[in-house]
Amino acid sequence: MIKLDLSNVLVDYDLSSYQKEVTKIHQMIHEQTGKGSDYLGWVNWPYEYDQEEFDRVKKAALRIREQANVLLVCGIGGSYLGARAAIEAIKGPYYDDTLEIIYVGNTFSSTAITRILKYIENKEVALNVISKSGSTTETALAFRIFKQFIENKYGEEESIKRIYVTTDKERGLLRPQVNQKGYESFVIPDSIGGRFSIITPVGLLPMAAAGIDIDEVMKGLKKAYDDLNTDKLEDNSAYQYGVMRRVLEKTGKNVEMFVSYEPHLVYIAEWLKQLYGESEGKEGKGLLPTSVNNSTDLHSMGQFVQEGTKCLFETVITVKEPIEDMLFPKANDNDDEMDYLVGKSLHWVNEQAFKGTLKAHVEEGKVPNIVLELKDTSAYSFGYMVYYFFKVLALSAYMLDVNPFDQPGVEVYKRNMFKLLGKE
Amino acid sequence: MIKLDLSNVLVDYDLSSYQKEVTKIHQMIHEQTGKGSDYLGWVNWPYEYDQEEFDRVKKAALRIREQANVLLVCGIGGSYLGARAAIEAIKGPYYDDTLEIIYVGNTFSSTAITRILKYIENKEVALNVISKSGSTTETALAFRIFKQFIENKYGEEESIKRIYVTTDKERGLLRPQVNQKGYESFVIPDSIGGRFSIITPVGLLPMAAAGIDIDEVMKGLKKAYDDLNTDKLEDNSAYQYGVMRRVLEKTGKNVEMFVSYEPHLVYIAEWLKQLYGESEGKEGKGLLPTSVNNSTDLHSMGQFVQEGTKCLFETVITVKEPIEDMLFPKANDNDDEMDYLVGKSLHWVNEQAFKGTLKAHVEEGKVPNIVLELKDTSAYSFGYMVYYFFKVLALSAYMLDVNPFDQPGVEVYKRNMFKLLGKE
Repeated sequence: MIKLDLSNVLVDYDLSSYQKEVTKIHQMIHEQTGKGSDYLGWVNWPYEYDQEEFDRVKKAALRIREQANVLLVCGIGGSYLGARAAIEAIKGPYYDDTLEIIYVGNTFSSTAITRILKYIENKEVALNVISKSGSTTETALAFRIFKQFIENKYGEEESIKRIYVTTDKERGLLRPQVNQKGYESFVIPDSIGGRFSIITPVGLLPMAAAGIDIDEVMKGLKKAYDDLNTDKLEDNSAYQYGVMRRVLEKTGKNVEMFVSYEPHLVYIAEWLKQLYGESEGKEGKGLLPTSVNNSTDLHSMGQFVQEGTKCLFETVITVKEPIEDMLFPKANDNDDEMDYLVGKSLHWVNEQAFKGTLKAHVEEGKVPNIVLELKDTSAYSFGYMVYYFFKVLALSAYMLDVNPFDQPGVEVYKRNMFKLLGKE
Repeated sequence: MIKLDLSNVLVDYDLSSYQKEVTKIHQMIHEQTGKGSDYLGWVNWPYEYDQEEFDRVKKAALRIREQANVLLVCGIGGSYLGARAAIEAIKGPYYDDTLEIIYVGNTFSSTAITRILKYIENKEVALNVISKSGSTTETALAFRIFKQFIENKYGEEESIKRIYVTTDKERGLLRPQVNQKGYESFVIPDSIGGRFSIITPVGLLPMAAAGIDIDEVMKGLKKAYDDLNTDKLEDNSAYQYGVMRRVLEKTGKNVEMFVSYEPHLVYIAEWLKQLYGESEGKEGKGLLPTSVNNSTDLHSMGQFVQEGTKCLFETVITVKEPIEDMLFPKANDNDDEMDYLVGKSLHWVNEQAFKGTLKAHVEEGKVPNIVLELKDTSAYSFGYMVYYFFKVLALSAYMLDVNPFDQPGVEVYKRNMFKLLGKE
């Protein structure tokens, strides 16, 4: 499903020398004996998720599609990145649908919030608020504003049918509101942290609302679980990639640049930045995740990658079968000197751009490249990929000897901000 | 116009010790004696641009607004990043207009191109192709496809009125097409490179088409020219910031992270990545530019910045006066425990998030922060900012002793790609 190519990493390595460490970490993951093991609920989730709730997610999604032409997804961090990455990757750019998804609750920008309020004024709106504690400030602030908008527009009774709450099963500020008002609600499990929550109703409800077949997503997760449930490095490409991240780090690289060649995969990189950066970036450790979208950014960041400071390696995510393709057309004249491409598929051209760039960066630029080829961006493949990256991350972060599942540093700005805001 | 705050850089420095070097570089810039000085046309441009052509840009923009509800801006790198940064920053998100701008010619993605073709099927379309040589592959490929779309839709005669060409004054593949067909055309000056071309018709035509007052942009440029035309470091905050970039680099930082707190400023960072990265990233040198948008990304990259590898410093771009603001509303109950913000403006809340984050990253995270405060995101302020960053970059890159105005590394992938594509 995912083809890993380590032939361009520009470093001598002996994977087998890591086998012992990988075996140990594989056990830590599957037997829940490592740091932060209370948050390993994602490991067996593909086979353990709540099927009754899953069916309710699908029904709620259909109701949203009937009642609204705008769905406000109100969440921040893991409470929107996974859904957004999935919807953009699977549906593709400029997809034609009756339902538009707008992400709110992830900013304090007065300009953004005011403009969105105006934009939805005359639209039919539903809202999915996503927060485990209900007290995440960006999300709670937006929820109050957009809930009032919906209540003013539809009245109390109808508004209750248009608000969907994804939160803790009993604690937090949102659960009492669910109990009091009767909003349809879904559970964020205790054992799955925000950046892994894409596989729970957090990610699945917005995905299903966007018309994605979430049964396929779960099938992909299961397949990845099966394929990657081995400690044998030679059979487990997720672990191979995970090891290689640390190998390259030891050669002095401190930046991992995610590269894609499809604009609709930009948010996969954003989702990965949280998954990797928030999991690893502690105790002064970790690879800084960054991203580009090529060939677009070859005309902005390309020069730096080719000839600038040698601080980074690239992890390229390519797609074998695009969602759409077309042949480059003949013209009346060849004034643009582009006739050499007539009859070629655009996707083939894109693939040559990737191959030419790989060679340029590796051979002349001396920038190590890891290449991951996805078969396609279907719901099934996307589900597979998500679980694949979970395994990559868990292995790599345990190799760094940090707790991959906490994020103590995120609290610091909040503490300072609450003081400035006068929160008690 | 731009307030620079260097009080959080966590390093002892003596700016005056750089005065001599700055004076020398200031002369290199203004007397055109440094590396790549053929490309210093941007320096005096605010007072030397072609007023007749400028007026034609404004008239063409009005015609585009009359004839189309979609303008395809067909260009890559500097041929779209500046316009996009300006339009998003100045107009703000979800702005209400009769004309939608779609950026094409910057990707080979078959999915993106096919979907855009479908999306514009029943819309009234105009196109501005932007390429100095006319042979940039991404742009030439898209121009053939979208030109055919326009010709098929409107016929030969009308299509000529809907295509606007920004290119070299006499060379390249597009100028002969202009001469033959009679497209309205604009000039990309020889002395201004792609990443500085936002101040020429390259950036100005799409901006004006989007309804931006480009007279105001030019006034801002002039004001910045006047304010920053001094070698005295204590009077020139652009040079102060430029020096500080190198000072921080010497402490071991190799990444500059651009930070904003407004989603509509995301493309300023993308534009800066090209301006800085492509200018500096050569001979194994330069700061890797990367970016986040807060507070959104505090919930993904925040942990890494706070506690991860200490490889970066932050350059924060804040805005004093937002485009829109609103007060946080009262509710019927305080179930969300957000009443402490009732009556506060959202922009004020956003400012506290910035201040709390600054303190968290600097004091506890030990991450140096440079802060630039823009008065607002008006056309005038935007013009000022553009020229400000030009001066920052020119100084910093000359301090690195590289040619800030070439990009030899961008050719390498193209050479490889052409071979794979079978181009002679």
